[in-house]
Amino acid sequence: MQNRLTSLFGIDFPIIQAGMIWCSGWRLASAVSNAGGLGLIGAGSMEPEVLLEHIHKCKDATNKPFGVNIPLLYSRVDRQIEIILSEGVKIVFTSAGNPSLLTPLLKNHGVTVVHVIANVKSALKCEQSGVDAIVAEGFEAGGHNGKEETTTFTLLPLIRNATKLPLIAAGGIATGRGMLAAMALGAEGFQIGSRFVASEESSAHPDFKHKVLETGDGDTFLTMKSLMPVRLIKNSFFLKVRELEESGASPDELKQLLGKGRAKLGMFDGNTEEGELEIGQAAALIKSIKPAGEIVREMVEEFEEARKGLLEYRISNIE
Amino acid sequence: MQNRLTSLFGIDFPIIQAGMIWCSGWRLASAVSNAGGLGLIGAGSMEPEVLLEHIHKCKDATNKPFGVNIPLLYSRVDRQIEIILSEGVKIVFTSAGNPSLLTPLLKNHGVTVVHVIANVKSALKCEQSGVDAIVAEGFEAGGHNGKEETTTFTLLPLIRNATKLPLIAAGGIATGRGMLAAMALGAEGFQIGSRFVASEESSAHPDFKHKVLETGDGDTFLTMKSLMPVRLIKNSFFLKVRELEESGASPDELKQLLGKGRAKLGMFDGNTEEGELEIGQAAALIKSIKPAGEIVREMVEEFEEARKGLLEYRISNIE
Repeated sequence: MQNRLTSLFGIDFPIIQAGMIWCSGWRLASAVSNAGGLGLIGAGSMEPEVLLEHIHKCKDATNKPFGVNIPLLYSRVDRQIEIILSEGVKIVFTSAGNPSLLTPLLKNHGVTVVHVIANVKSALKCEQSGVDAIVAEGFEAGGHNGKEETTTFTLLPLIRNATKLPLIAAGGIATGRGMLAAMALGAEGFQIGSRFVASEESSAHPDFKHKVLETGDGDTFLTMKSLMPVRLIKNSFFLKVRELEESGASPDELKQLLGKGRAKLGMFDGNTEEGELEIGQAAALIKSIKPAGEIVREMVEEFEEARKGLLEYRISNIE
Repeated sequence: MQNRLTSLFGIDFPIIQAGMIWCSGWRLASAVSNAGGLGLIGAGSMEPEVLLEHIHKCKDATNKPFGVNIPLLYSRVDRQIEIILSEGVKIVFTSAGNPSLLTPLLKNHGVTVVHVIANVKSALKCEQSGVDAIVAEGFEAGGHNGKEETTTFTLLPLIRNATKLPLIAAGGIATGRGMLAAMALGAEGFQIGSRFVASEESSAHPDFKHKVLETGDGDTFLTMKSLMPVRLIKNSFFLKVRELEESGASPDELKQLLGKGRAKLGMFDGNTEEGELEIGQAAALIKSIKPAGEIVREMVEEFEEARKGLLEYRISNIE
């Protein structure tokens, strides 16, 4: 599975573990990197000193390349970038913001920069900003998401037609067959979130992991669109949000309901009813909690098997 | 491309032209059938006598198999079914309703029955009702759509895991690469709507066809969720709907705004601002109006080329 992305990152398989708040610390990132994929520390939920600690521990746990994901949402981004540069982190994924803000600085320090986008306009902005690769994230992805609601199936060929940048697919991919489908649509790599939430090394609370296993089709929804769209499991908190929205509530009223620490409450502390539980639609495909390295190996095997099957149309001829 | 579905329908390629209100009459259906796919007359917008006329004309225009799509929404369904049976139509696609209502009657008359679903529960109900195949339609599809908002990318493997029924993918597919991706996810056939709206033989108003060509990413949205979710192009009418919804309007207020004949006004009469314009996200991939037969041939060629490319990973190694 060698291609432009495996060369860019120095990895064996173009499988990237998504940087996810409260779920992807050094344990998960190093496990994925050790298995030949690219692990990402999700800095979104980390104070700068916590990020520093995770980078140190990740370096101790793997000799393979790993990266950090930074959502460009918080005031602490500048301090996080300082730490990343002084620690010599070589790969940074940025998301939820403008790629022109940090890309030049990071590139000047020799960092490989990847930016997450959800529409054609942002893909072109990435090209202008000099990023090395893009993640195109569809509507089915967990957590924060694009306002356009474009799905992975339609977003990938649109982005593929718009730019020659290396293209990583995200949203809805939890299996080797999903990887193959994304490749058919023009992707060269695969960013996988939900599947790794339900891994042994994820820092998600065990009750959240088990909730992911129980999540079926129609159990997650994109919500809080007037603030910043986010895909959540339909629990008590979600139902309160929906009730408020259906009554025509203002963004301020939503903010008040949301309060502070909802994501930590749900995903890290394990309050699966009152907390915010960010997960993708692909949760419905996940039936077990496994070591992250085993997940990587299984996906690669299923991808290869499915690829051979397509050759003979065997893949779909269920008899 | 021979498989269970080409045998079931007696066609050359498992490409099904979706039955679409105001767009798919006998001209489009016969053109697709003549090209080796399966054309469907969209009965949803047809009074019984109009449907009868279209069946007659379709029989005159092709010797190949064709079918009729019937949304189970309207009071005239019984009369439509009488016509279908007396005319000896051999293939019926039903949608927007319960498959147990009509399947036994149709099967008793030797009709091949396909039902459109958007979740696992309905797929299992199809199995119990004795339908011959199912269409799994993702969130990105145009027109009426499931409440679960599950995308093609996640819906297909879920349905594939849930039932052994022949599986037709719908939603987001407008190219041969899309067909290949759907096959990787477990589909055996492909129901294609939006691409055929922008065909020469479609009965869509020319102004609607041109509007489809201009539709980019983020230009369609699923709306009117409190009535029956429908994906529309973002025009003046859509913006009025959204404003009402954001103010917390009741379903009755929405119904009043919708009024009668909005879909005909937009898609058939060509009022692209005040009418309802049903189209899928895949519209963003459509750049030309072509004969339907040429569309079928191009999709088959692109599918075969992409399939060979996947073998060598060439598909995504843009250099």
